Amino acid sequence: MASNGAVDSKTHKFNPHFTQAVINATGPKASPRVRQLTTSLIRHLHDFARENELTVDEWMAGVELMNEAGRMSDDRRNEGQLVCDIFGLESLVDEITYKLASDAADEPTATAILGPFWRKEAPLKSMGDTIVSGFDDKGDRTWMHGTVTDFLTGKPIEGAVLDVWHTAPNGLYEQQDPDQPDMNLRGRFTTGKDGKYNFYCLRPVPYPIPYDGPAGKILQALDRHPYRPAHIHFILTAPGYKPIITQIFDRNSKYIEDDAVFAVKDSLIVDFKPFQGDPKADFELPYDFKLATFEDAKKHSVAGTTEESAA
Amino acid sequence: MASNGAVDSKTHKFNPHFTQAVINATGPKASPRVRQLTTSLIRHLHDFARENELTVDEWMAGVELMNEAGRMSDDRRNEGQLVCDIFGLESLVDEITYKLASDAADEPTATAILGPFWRKEAPLKSMGDTIVSGFDDKGDRTWMHGTVTDFLTGKPIEGAVLDVWHTAPNGLYEQQDPDQPDMNLRGRFTTGKDGKYNFYCLRPVPYPIPYDGPAGKILQALDRHPYRPAHIHFILTAPGYKPIITQIFDRNSKYIEDDAVFAVKDSLIVDFKPFQGDPKADFELPYDFKLATFEDAKKHSVAGTTEESAA
Repeated sequence: MASNGAVDSKTHKFNPHFTQAVINATGPKASPRVRQLTTSLIRHLHDFARENELTVDEWMAGVELMNEAGRMSDDRRNEGQLVCDIFGLESLVDEITYKLASDAADEPTATAILGPFWRKEAPLKSMGDTIVSGFDDKGDRTWMHGTVTDFLTGKPIEGAVLDVWHTAPNGLYEQQDPDQPDMNLRGRFTTGKDGKYNFYCLRPVPYPIPYDGPAGKILQALDRHPYRPAHIHFILTAPGYKPIITQIFDRNSKYIEDDAVFAVKDSLIVDFKPFQGDPKADFELPYDFKLATFEDAKKHSVAGTTEESAA
Repeated sequence: MASNGAVDSKTHKFNPHFTQAVINATGPKASPRVRQLTTSLIRHLHDFARENELTVDEWMAGVELMNEAGRMSDDRRNEGQLVCDIFGLESLVDEITYKLASDAADEPTATAILGPFWRKEAPLKSMGDTIVSGFDDKGDRTWMHGTVTDFLTGKPIEGAVLDVWHTAPNGLYEQQDPDQPDMNLRGRFTTGKDGKYNFYCLRPVPYPIPYDGPAGKILQALDRHPYRPAHIHFILTAPGYKPIITQIFDRNSKYIEDDAVFAVKDSLIVDFKPFQGDPKADFELPYDFKLATFEDAKKHSVAGTTEESAA
């Protein structure tokens, strides 16, 4: 027994040949990457089971949670993803995949998780349009604007597509809420030669992630709250540039230190500024996005960085 | 980098505080066991992701497989369980939970995985009945018989319920097959004072586990076959005795050394003997089951056994 009460996998009392037998079943035609991932997955799964002397009932409860998550998932909801999110897995994989992004000033915009609420084919909008088509009288109206630039040259990027989505003031995304118009608070904007963008949205609010499924059950068992700090989601794409999936977070939002899905990074925290002189907006939100070309992204891939802010 | 090309989790280049931050989110009211299991799960999941530099796309492919497994699962099918099975997880958890069972002669009957095809409320039958209600002209008709005894005293156990199920000659369980009568090849038998049981069934055949879902996709990616050796499933219960979930395997079956779900144990391999003189059976299958009382099961719990046969 290890000091924490768990069984040490190296000295356990179970069949010592079993895990290797399962790994050895993999055939010669499996791709090297599939072989690597599944070998590692089998080792970790088996070590997890042995170290904790996992019982059949506990394992089956896990299977039932997984199956329930799958049954709840469709094109409007991804509960399997949400379960990963509350264990920090999406944020970690985001860090691993986009390790180029860091908090340094001369780096491209940091990334953050996609989350389960993005939808394909958000409405194409013109600069200066609003993405609000419902609840427009209930939220803090916000004018967001900025420039999309190349992080190295500082030059504006033409043809960058900014895909934006956020929750309504009731804390729900439109696909969760029958009272909102389809595609409310979503839109795609394409930059011109100046790389600039601007649009109207609402100031988002903190909201609980869906609590009626396996993720909610797990949070409850863990004595954890389900809230995310107020944030706006983006996907930035541009010809020749590495796409960025990210979120920006309202500095004054509750849960900014305590995101249920561990996505907050310092460089993504922004300030909503009271705004006067525009009858369509109560707040102004200036924010610039910096992209890296595929080539630069490869060249500048950070190695050895261990100083990023903890989630 | 470790020698196998994977990243060593101890010297990785990612945020070194992230995993602990996720673990620390667990609240004070979480039960000790939930805290232990989720802490370990988070560590293994994160180590798995870092060691393999898991990408967002790879992770998302895993989420989609999980969700698809859940969507395919209902009261007739458990694809989430099947995915675990092909990674050996159910067999391992079975070993962990029922470590009392071993291959020694004076031990209770060894256990094996439940598998995804058991159904509640199989028909109650009388001794000597058949469980065959379809395909009776196609399979090798078998008379199975034996005694259920206490593994320590050797005394017959009265009131033991033997719940049995197996595939049809076409390799399908009845719930997978619209051409079979409901509850075909399933039955429950209750022993009298002599502890004896006997019934007619068919000699089972090897069959592929369902190959049309995530488990099939994974097997294909791993260049593995989906077959299980021929076997019959049992659950044995008796008042005062620890229930046993098990399977017996036909020694002459293909795949006996190569079960897709790693469930075969030496002590569970049996011989179907050609049988003459009974117009209702082509084969005879004698098999005795040995149960342990809850008390004995606790007392004799094996510690230090590492000699069980590899799957």
